[in-house]
Amino acid sequence: MSHAITREQLIGNLNWRYATKQFDPARKISPQDWAALEESIILTPSSFGLQPIAAVVVNDSAVKEKLVAASYNQRQVADASHLVVFSIKTNVTEADVNAFIKLISEKRGVPAEALEGYRGMMIGSIIKGMDDAARRTWAAKQAYIALGQLMASAAMLNIDVCPIEGFSPAAYDATLNLAHKGLAATVVAAIGYRAQTDGYAKLPKVRLPKEQIIVHL
Amino acid sequence: MSHAITREQLIGNLNWRYATKQFDPARKISPQDWAALEESIILTPSSFGLQPIAAVVVNDSAVKEKLVAASYNQRQVADASHLVVFSIKTNVTEADVNAFIKLISEKRGVPAEALEGYRGMMIGSIIKGMDDAARRTWAAKQAYIALGQLMASAAMLNIDVCPIEGFSPAAYDATLNLAHKGLAATVVAAIGYRAQTDGYAKLPKVRLPKEQIIVHL
Repeated sequence: MSHAITREQLIGNLNWRYATKQFDPARKISPQDWAALEESIILTPSSFGLQPIAAVVVNDSAVKEKLVAASYNQRQVADASHLVVFSIKTNVTEADVNAFIKLISEKRGVPAEALEGYRGMMIGSIIKGMDDAARRTWAAKQAYIALGQLMASAAMLNIDVCPIEGFSPAAYDATLNLAHKGLAATVVAAIGYRAQTDGYAKLPKVRLPKEQIIVHL
Repeated sequence: MSHAITREQLIGNLNWRYATKQFDPARKISPQDWAALEESIILTPSSFGLQPIAAVVVNDSAVKEKLVAASYNQRQVADASHLVVFSIKTNVTEADVNAFIKLISEKRGVPAEALEGYRGMMIGSIIKGMDDAARRTWAAKQAYIALGQLMASAAMLNIDVCPIEGFSPAAYDATLNLAHKGLAATVVAAIGYRAQTDGYAKLPKVRLPKEQIIVHL
């Protein structure tokens, strides 16, 4: 059921969030809140609905410490309650498109034949219309939509996130054995609760002047 | 001021949203709601905080009709209340980094010299560490974070969005004269209210099985 929130809640919560530098390692996200954040990731819109991404959730402390070393020693990777490595599927093929068509057909009770035009569009655009590098960039963009939706969703629940692009994708892939799963690390989110000692929480937010970001034509 | 919403509100609103196929052309977003959505775009986190993007808001009806033609005739482009063309800045240079450092210095009352390390990281990573193509991809990813935050934000206000990747960037750039502004169209969002006749609003949402999207390690 939809239930609009107020503009003040929306903007208040978006202003409250910041790229958390120091997490409180003792504070864990409740299973109920975590389930909601996973649901938010699953509900993220994607190109054609193909969801060419996975959210890899890392729990093992020793593994997280290895990832700290692969992230310019950013402690958030290990200190946050939860760590998500947004990864792209490296091998999206016609079989994925066909499986997706089958899924739509089942969920919506429409014959697959009725979706042939949609299938053709996806094949033409994503499978035949792109080389491997372009397809990876396309998938990475979908991962960034998921990151955006996750950061906004967490802010609505007053849960902190630090988005991290400063890491070695190759080291992450190796440490998490992602290639074996057909995945490649793209962008990282450390999620939890800010430490009371994180001075960055109190700094004024810095944004470019509005007229540089919003251009009315 | 932050004010957490409930998990049920968050997920209810994210479930409520869908890629709107038919907008009600008669229903316009109120100036107050639109101001909140612009603020949400401005507040979107970005790599280093550099905000290498602009949200181009198109109001002219004749221009919008031209863009419909450049978008595989998707009527949402003209029928939605508002149209945002997320664009990247095509020419991010050391001068942008320096201006950003000056802005941080002013907003936070710290001497620019104290930010020299941060400046060096940005120059090394974004200006010297990337060629033009890589920098455009980096900027495009930031545009997709903004799209993700916008879609989630609009859902919280029960405002509809149709994200659009199916368009000709070259035709958009030409129609909107974006190159002249140092911008290039990257991804589009049509924003407004669903038409009551849009059958897609009632279809069950299709998502891959959870274990394909959320991978616990």
